[in-house]
Amino acid sequence: MKLATYKDGSRDGQLVVVSRDLSTAHYATGIAHKLQQALDDWNFISPQLHDLYVTLNQGKARHAFPFDPAQCMAPLPRAYQWADGSAYINHVELVRAARSSEVPTSFYADPLMYQGGSDDFIGPCDDVVVASEDFGIDFEAEIAVITGDVPMGATPDQALDGVRLLMLANDVSLRNLIPAELAKGFGFFQSKPATAFSPVAITPDEIGDAWQGGRVHLTVQSTWNGRKVGMCEAGPEMTFHFGQLVAHITKTRNVRAGSIVGSGTVSNKGVELEGRKDWPKGYSCIAEKRAIETILDGKPSTEFMQFGDTIRIEVKGKDGLSVFGAIDQKITSLT
Amino acid sequence: MKLATYKDGSRDGQLVVVSRDLSTAHYATGIAHKLQQALDDWNFISPQLHDLYVTLNQGKARHAFPFDPAQCMAPLPRAYQWADGSAYINHVELVRAARSSEVPTSFYADPLMYQGGSDDFIGPCDDVVVASEDFGIDFEAEIAVITGDVPMGATPDQALDGVRLLMLANDVSLRNLIPAELAKGFGFFQSKPATAFSPVAITPDEIGDAWQGGRVHLTVQSTWNGRKVGMCEAGPEMTFHFGQLVAHITKTRNVRAGSIVGSGTVSNKGVELEGRKDWPKGYSCIAEKRAIETILDGKPSTEFMQFGDTIRIEVKGKDGLSVFGAIDQKITSLT
Repeated sequence: MKLATYKDGSRDGQLVVVSRDLSTAHYATGIAHKLQQALDDWNFISPQLHDLYVTLNQGKARHAFPFDPAQCMAPLPRAYQWADGSAYINHVELVRAARSSEVPTSFYADPLMYQGGSDDFIGPCDDVVVASEDFGIDFEAEIAVITGDVPMGATPDQALDGVRLLMLANDVSLRNLIPAELAKGFGFFQSKPATAFSPVAITPDEIGDAWQGGRVHLTVQSTWNGRKVGMCEAGPEMTFHFGQLVAHITKTRNVRAGSIVGSGTVSNKGVELEGRKDWPKGYSCIAEKRAIETILDGKPSTEFMQFGDTIRIEVKGKDGLSVFGAIDQKITSLT
Repeated sequence: MKLATYKDGSRDGQLVVVSRDLSTAHYATGIAHKLQQALDDWNFISPQLHDLYVTLNQGKARHAFPFDPAQCMAPLPRAYQWADGSAYINHVELVRAARSSEVPTSFYADPLMYQGGSDDFIGPCDDVVVASEDFGIDFEAEIAVITGDVPMGATPDQALDGVRLLMLANDVSLRNLIPAELAKGFGFFQSKPATAFSPVAITPDEIGDAWQGGRVHLTVQSTWNGRKVGMCEAGPEMTFHFGQLVAHITKTRNVRAGSIVGSGTVSNKGVELEGRKDWPKGYSCIAEKRAIETILDGKPSTEFMQFGDTIRIEVKGKDGLSVFGAIDQKITSLT
């Protein structure tokens, strides 16, 4: 099942069911107005949404209309939780290697995670609005899940059972604000502005056996200003699976329905190529590219994003079709 | 105007209007079911709630009933944002002095703030459930505000205009989880379990000129196991006012209606008394008491909370009446 939220001028938009090939959509009116409502009462509402999904895929839904990703808000335009992990340790290794710092061994046993703001997400085709290019504007291509209720003390397996939906995220980051912010010791705050999500959120069964062991075994494509810069495998190198990430939260509190949990920047290890290290799969954020440049050449040569830059993030299924629709955004100035 | 949320088995409860003296309440049925709904459309809904409030205070509301804080959820049982500052720099000074570390000068110009989980708040009289006493269970008595919409780039004065409601918070902290968590560099996460809020949230006019310069000029009383341990002045020593705290968020993103912003532990400076430093106003969290003990005696002697301990947090108005009702909780074990 694929779900999206259409803009209607309200804060939470209108829930729509989207066909498997993303060609058509249908309002979920009469079933649920908002995605949060469906998540709050999933066992009752999701079978009804699924029935509509089946009818829509058969081309038999009465009021189907062409699906337009530009009309989408984030699937949850605002959420009660956005907790973002850093589950691809290779990303941490690269960034640390660039500043000649070791990765603590604990990082391989205990996930890194930060709490993000969740009151004002942006839609997949909405502009990323930033006050200044000096902030060091970067994208981060990620996989994210939306959960049901998961109680405090849940094991990773139990937590994995709480995963309801999958989507893509662009966890926009303001790199030049990070060093001072982390030095204060309280973690990211101003350096993490509003996050964008893919046009549709999908139930895990949509990707068949590509959803395995709590990981999405597909390739995340990142295209910056029309140039493909990342073709990163999201599955094998995800150090912590989504059940482990959710269970990291439940160590000390309950996780309630509609919580969004992110994977962190999808990142793949480099290879030795003719005596020189290379990263043939590219990168899912510019910071990583700059870390690679620093490791290879002593300093970064790629600049962060400028106003007018575009970023497109997409995942194709084994059938070659877009799974979540594309995040496709332009960076613009606040003023 | 005073507002509360009554438990009704649902995730968001039922909005009630509470009389000024906290003696009676009235369902807001017909006006708004949920507090978030009122915040989403404040200019339209709040005058109607206020009319009911006036009638209730006059003793003329038809279906008024005795107000019972034990029936309350947090005013917002779940929220789209919970951003907690550390606006009383004295607290930071004490904790740092205890470990012989200087406070960076930037801390006096730029607020400390962390993003907290907001999907599962606890009511004012609900138990604080913790898996282990070894986590180092502590309370933190704070003032918090609920905002309307405040756009990215707002100045502190503009941000202050966005404050809709005031309340008290118990920002429960798990002290023994903090050092390892901060060492990872991503800030608090597991060390900050579910937060509790006072029975009622009030409009700032309820406390007259005690709401001044974006600060609550009243005394926060903390009572631990029946013993009054804190009588801390929340006004004069709040280094950053609430407008500054909200504007800290709006530097890089919008703040949307229903965001909760906390002051951090209310904390007052010590005084010289007969050649020895003393803190006559007590403390609003045990970590601070332990910092004081460390400064005076070289080591802490007060232990953190045990299962069965109670904590009561309350503010009295100039008329001696409880302003927000009391947070009154017991610490209990998860299993």
